[in-house]
Amino acid sequence: MDKNKFMKRAIEIAEKNITDSLGGPFGAVIVKKGIIIGEGSNTVTSTNDPTAHAEINAIRQACQNSQSFNLSNSIIYTNCEPCPMCLSAIYWARIEKIFFANSKTDAAEIGFDDDLIYQEIILPVEKRSIPTQQIFIDESILAFRAWERSDSKINY
Amino acid sequence: MDKNKFMKRAIEIAEKNITDSLGGPFGAVIVKKGIIIGEGSNTVTSTNDPTAHAEINAIRQACQNSQSFNLSNSIIYTNCEPCPMCLSAIYWARIEKIFFANSKTDAAEIGFDDDLIYQEIILPVEKRSIPTQQIFIDESILAFRAWERSDSKINY
Repeated sequence: MDKNKFMKRAIEIAEKNITDSLGGPFGAVIVKKGIIIGEGSNTVTSTNDPTAHAEINAIRQACQNSQSFNLSNSIIYTNCEPCPMCLSAIYWARIEKIFFANSKTDAAEIGFDDDLIYQEIILPVEKRSIPTQQIFIDESILAFRAWERSDSKINY
Repeated sequence: MDKNKFMKRAIEIAEKNITDSLGGPFGAVIVKKGIIIGEGSNTVTSTNDPTAHAEINAIRQACQNSQSFNLSNSIIYTNCEPCPMCLSAIYWARIEKIFFANSKTDAAEIGFDDDLIYQEIILPVEKRSIPTQQIFIDESILAFRAWERSDSKINY
């Protein structure tokens, strides 16, 4: 029944976020070996940060607490199905399991609609609604070549 | 020729990031009305933050500088095609144009492969490589109902 306990905590964070007026009604908890190592709520409007979704904030806190950019063997509990930004962050963080409660359809019904982003991501660059142009290719690749030659690089 | 100037700056940030050992060879610049309002480099390894890609850092800085979570009328210049996390963040931030230089194929060749994430996002939840389960639906929707009733909410 641990998963219910952790999801309850994510929902509690979401509810407190409304009364505290910190942002949207979203909360997330990251758990490793049965212990919460990070929590986050949506603080987009209160911190003027469009990336400050609950999952992103929870990942950032869990990583600070564990002094690692890798959350292998961790589980995320979020009260809402992750948006594409947060889902991608979950992959980058190497989180291994996701529990969510409300669906993205539920979120759309209260005004948080990420369906456009899900639709856009799968389109080829030239068909997306944000005009996107590739420039300066020859000059740019030099930085990548420098990275390859660098002795101090940390791969991840 | 302004677009070349701003892309040069993004590349310069990426190159400096290698010598400073802050993270991967990535830099981004956000421009509004011809002025740089935010810059960022990849600081994943140096700050233990898997979300600290160049574009995310640039968005966060631009938002702090403009005290807004909305970057309408802004352009992002990034030395590499955005990963799905950063692309989604660009949508959430309402950035209106994207210039990139190196492609995601170039990035994959130096070890930064986001193709898995692009492939996973389009799959139905039950087919993704990270096991994902929806739980606790009835309890969770109460937070969303509380949000709808809240007088202090800021929609975005």
